[in-house]
Amino acid sequence: MTTTATSPRERMLRAKDAARRIGLLSDDDKRGILLAIADAIDAAAGDVIAANERDLERGRSEGLSSGLQDRLRLDAPRVAALASAVREIAELPDPVGRVLDERVTPDGLRLTKVAVPFGVVGSIYEARPNVTVDIAALALRSGNAVVLRGGSAALETNGALVTAMRGALADRGVDPEAIQTVDDFGRDGARELMRARGIVDVLVPRGSAQLIETVVTESSVPVIETGAGVVHIVLDETADEAWSRDIVVNAKVQRPSVCNAVETVLVHRAAAERLVPPVVAALQAAGVTVHADDAVRALTTGTVPAVEGDWATEHMSLDLSMRVVDDLDDALAHIRRYSTHHTESIITDDDGSAERFLAEVDSAVVMVNASTRFTDGGEFGFGAEVGISTQKLHARGPMGLSELTSTKWLARGTGQVRA
Amino acid sequence: MTTTATSPRERMLRAKDAARRIGLLSDDDKRGILLAIADAIDAAAGDVIAANERDLERGRSEGLSSGLQDRLRLDAPRVAALASAVREIAELPDPVGRVLDERVTPDGLRLTKVAVPFGVVGSIYEARPNVTVDIAALALRSGNAVVLRGGSAALETNGALVTAMRGALADRGVDPEAIQTVDDFGRDGARELMRARGIVDVLVPRGSAQLIETVVTESSVPVIETGAGVVHIVLDETADEAWSRDIVVNAKVQRPSVCNAVETVLVHRAAAERLVPPVVAALQAAGVTVHADDAVRALTTGTVPAVEGDWATEHMSLDLSMRVVDDLDDALAHIRRYSTHHTESIITDDDGSAERFLAEVDSAVVMVNASTRFTDGGEFGFGAEVGISTQKLHARGPMGLSELTSTKWLARGTGQVRA
Repeated sequence: MTTTATSPRERMLRAKDAARRIGLLSDDDKRGILLAIADAIDAAAGDVIAANERDLERGRSEGLSSGLQDRLRLDAPRVAALASAVREIAELPDPVGRVLDERVTPDGLRLTKVAVPFGVVGSIYEARPNVTVDIAALALRSGNAVVLRGGSAALETNGALVTAMRGALADRGVDPEAIQTVDDFGRDGARELMRARGIVDVLVPRGSAQLIETVVTESSVPVIETGAGVVHIVLDETADEAWSRDIVVNAKVQRPSVCNAVETVLVHRAAAERLVPPVVAALQAAGVTVHADDAVRALTTGTVPAVEGDWATEHMSLDLSMRVVDDLDDALAHIRRYSTHHTESIITDDDGSAERFLAEVDSAVVMVNASTRFTDGGEFGFGAEVGISTQKLHARGPMGLSELTSTKWLARGTGQVRA
Repeated sequence: MTTTATSPRERMLRAKDAARRIGLLSDDDKRGILLAIADAIDAAAGDVIAANERDLERGRSEGLSSGLQDRLRLDAPRVAALASAVREIAELPDPVGRVLDERVTPDGLRLTKVAVPFGVVGSIYEARPNVTVDIAALALRSGNAVVLRGGSAALETNGALVTAMRGALADRGVDPEAIQTVDDFGRDGARELMRARGIVDVLVPRGSAQLIETVVTESSVPVIETGAGVVHIVLDETADEAWSRDIVVNAKVQRPSVCNAVETVLVHRAAAERLVPPVVAALQAAGVTVHADDAVRALTTGTVPAVEGDWATEHMSLDLSMRVVDDLDDALAHIRRYSTHHTESIITDDDGSAERFLAEVDSAVVMVNASTRFTDGGEFGFGAEVGISTQKLHARGPMGLSELTSTKWLARGTGQVRA
């Protein structure tokens, strides 16, 4: 079911009004709503796929790249996967109502800090229909209303998905205005969403570095930034050879297109001769092109010369930058300069190096002797992931449902006044 | 000691560099630094008071109001109070290093979420020299560097205080660049501070609603918003008469100029005849002017008619707005419309009303049967207060030292790779 609201602002105000009631729903209510949404997506599969086909046709005629077409495309198995992701989110524990602090003042006032929904969660993202369903399900499961602004290439697909989800709310007697899209207002929709301070409580951009930068710069609504990952692994003087090889290969090859894949390997000079040849050979055997500095190139064949730009590049491909560093200080200085503060790992057998690395590296996740691919809400046991925050305010690292809640202090008194 | 850096950006970069080392200091180190700062402020009292006298002279010649002159003025007891506040902050527990979450993945990767300093804390505030010292001490105690931008009317005073504090750092062998002011760059200082995303990690504006609104709108650095308080007390149908009278009078009169003072009292119609006359009489006896709707005026003498603007006004004075509401729903609707989401309290003997109020009011602190004046970091047991956040991201309500920290995930592995 579609909305009758005719402006982005009116839609957002309706979401805010609906949020009051969504925020008071019980765990069971919210679980039931998500299961109903999953069923509604399954039931609407035909409509959704037809809408998606219209988007794809328009995309082809407008020259949309085949990569973007693939991200946009929904077929029957992909629609079923959307519904199934919603069912998984339905089964997560309710983040609302958790008691985060309790104290009694000297006057006997009982204070309780509890987790409460934000209210209205906004998201601006690219033409990935899975984000439409994902963010709506995560927001509702944590008691929030949601305002969505997806890429215009997915306009019809998102419209069909939102219509199905709103229908599920209405069928269960829940205000469907809790799910809103402003896709049909084009750039104005995004602009008004970024200016909706006081109506929208938090904005989560999802997509390219460029999109996130735009939202961070232009939004007066508080933003949770999920950033790119120029991720480093340091091979320390004492690094185990097998761990070095297996972890670097896993961190690069297992899924090269994601933000927790490694981009740069820094090798301690005292270990270079021992570690560089086997690690590079293993990478090359897995199809990786190594962009290497002179010291690495002197120990290997088949690498390409690294250029300055490589150190700041998130390759998102089977490319990896590698250089030799003088010592741990030099490695830390390189990381300070080029890291995007997502994830860094050190391979070492030296507890002093390990603890220094953990203390001094200023990233969301800092690892010892493990693959950077573990920076992931699922791996951390959150069950679902809102994104990986690379900023420091409110949330840092993999974000689960809890990160879509705020807090409130409840104070229960018996007539206390302040002296 | 003053800095040699000649641009706001250069100063902020030096603060960022210093922050790395400040962030690694031990609890004892930080405590010692604060005690040294307190001593340095005491020792510099003559210089500070002389600088303050120059600011005051300039202020008088430029027509600064007597209220603002009073806020700006430092005499010997006030300087001693600044030093003493720093000594109190020195004795607070270190918020850094707290373990906030621990988990082990199925692969045996040990995850620990710890509190870490933000890095660089910025503050933009008005011509109140106490904020200069307060924010610097709170930032350093929580392991952060600080960049300060106070009101230009306090330029010389802030300069003398910053020089004294930097000197104390240098004397203890700590990089003095951890404390920076950009006051001497005028508006450019504030502008560059608001654009220093990536250098400054969080910005805390302190002052008028206008100042905070400007920072929130213009800053690309994440902002923790501390807002105004249009604070409500609801007198429910079953409210105890003595509690109603004592709590309303305390919440208005004990310190009318602060954000947790009550501004509006809403009285349940069924209790109006019983409660309005004694509560208004007690307020009037304490010198309060009651801005009343017709229903309240019909039950009282000596009130003034409330106008629409009163309901949205933070009086900051011995003025209070009062109206009769039909029921709890009506009270909640009034609060939704006019509250600034700071603090609201209900006086009631009915558990159902109390719990509904606690659940449905969307404010940082929601109270039952207590004075709104308790919304305060000191009263909550935080020992010192960074401010009271009226936003929902990162921190809500009174903020202590913990709210000047971010988090980091540490992952300790033994060669784990992702399957």
